[in-house]
Amino acid sequence: MELNKRQTEIFEIVKADGPITGEQIAERLKLARATIRPDLAILTMAGFLDARPRVGYFYSGKRPAQSVADSMTGMRVRDFQSIPVVVEENISVYDAICQMFLEDVGTLFVVDQSSFLTGVLSRKDLLRTSLGNNELEKIPVHVIMTRMPNITYCDKQDTLLHAAKKMIDQQIDSLPVVVDNGEGLEVVGRVTKTNITAAFLSLADDHEL
Amino acid sequence: MELNKRQTEIFEIVKADGPITGEQIAERLKLARATIRPDLAILTMAGFLDARPRVGYFYSGKRPAQSVADSMTGMRVRDFQSIPVVVEENISVYDAICQMFLEDVGTLFVVDQSSFLTGVLSRKDLLRTSLGNNELEKIPVHVIMTRMPNITYCDKQDTLLHAAKKMIDQQIDSLPVVVDNGEGLEVVGRVTKTNITAAFLSLADDHEL
Repeated sequence: MELNKRQTEIFEIVKADGPITGEQIAERLKLARATIRPDLAILTMAGFLDARPRVGYFYSGKRPAQSVADSMTGMRVRDFQSIPVVVEENISVYDAICQMFLEDVGTLFVVDQSSFLTGVLSRKDLLRTSLGNNELEKIPVHVIMTRMPNITYCDKQDTLLHAAKKMIDQQIDSLPVVVDNGEGLEVVGRVTKTNITAAFLSLADDHEL
Repeated sequence: MELNKRQTEIFEIVKADGPITGEQIAERLKLARATIRPDLAILTMAGFLDARPRVGYFYSGKRPAQSVADSMTGMRVRDFQSIPVVVEENISVYDAICQMFLEDVGTLFVVDQSSFLTGVLSRKDLLRTSLGNNELEKIPVHVIMTRMPNITYCDKQDTLLHAAKKMIDQQIDSLPVVVDNGEGLEVVGRVTKTNITAAFLSLADDHEL
C-alpha cells in the first residue's frame, strides 16, 4: 500500500514524536482534526500506526514501503552511470575502432588537450567511415565525430528519467555525463540505454515484481 | 493510493453487485466479516466505495488508479516491439552494412530461404569485419553472423521485464521476436534497449511522474 503526501507527513510526525494525539497532529499540520481523520484511519488500519485510547497514536514498527513511482523518480544518473571511454582528437579512426572493441563500448568521447569534451563517436559513425575506406589509419577522428555544440550531455545529479528522455528525443544511444568547470566540459561518466534497461530491471527486483 | 489484492477483489464485487452488505461480501470471499472490515474502511475512506446504513456498500464512481508496479509487470513485448529488418544468408557484408544504414537499425536478422531465423548481425559484428577488410562485397553474412542455436529470442507475449533481463544477462542490444511454427522460427518483431528506454519513459508519463 502506498501513502499519499499527507499520510506520509502524519506518519513522520508520529514516528518522531509519538505517542501523540490526533488533535496535536492536526495542529502541527495546521489542519482540522476532521480533515486528517481518514488518513489516521488508513495509517492505523494499514498497520503503520497503532492507537491507544487516552494515549494517542504511536509508530507500530512497520515501515511503509517506498512506492515504485517514488523509486523511479528518485533514480539519478550518478547511481547508474558507467565509466566513460575518452580518446584524443588526433587519434586515427582505425585506433578509435580498436579502442571501442578493447573497451567494449558503443560510444567514445573525444577530448582536446585540456581534457575538455569536443566530440562524440558512435559505432554508427565509425562503421560509416570504415565502409569502402582503406586508409582508416590516416583519418583523425575529429574529422568524422559529432562536434560541440551538437552534443547532448547530462549532469550526474539529473534524474535517470531526464537522461532517458534526452536519448529518446535525440535518437542517441548514450550521453556523456559532464561537469562544467567554467572553461569546458569535463567527462566524468557515460549513461546509456543499457543503464536505463538495468534501472528498469532493478526497479522490478527492488520491489519484488 | 494503491489497493492490495483483497481490496481489489472487494472493490470488484461491490462494483458488479452493489449495493451489497459487508456480510454478503465476506461470504463471497469465504472470509469472516471482521477480516474484511479494515479493507472496507480503507476503500470507503479512500472514496472508492460509499456505505449507507441498512443498504450496504456501493460503487462511488471513483476508479482506483493502476499502480506503477502493475503497469510495469503488465507491459508486454508486443506493445513495445519494433519492426524487424531481415536479410538473406547470402547477401554480402557490404550490402548488410548498407541495409543497416538505410533502415537505421543496430541489428539485422538473417533468414534462410524458408524465411526462418538462422542468424543475427550486430553493428559490432559488421564493424569488426569491415576493419582492414577490402572485400566486403565478397563475404556473405552467414560467415560472420551469430548462428542458431546461439541466438537469444523472445515471444511477443513475454513481459518486457523478461526481455530486458535477457538483454542484460546476455549483454546484447536487441532480441528477435519470433513465432515457432514447428519447422522454424519466424521473425515477427524486434525488441531493443531503445524500446525498454521508451517503456521506462512511458511509465513515468502515464502516471504523471
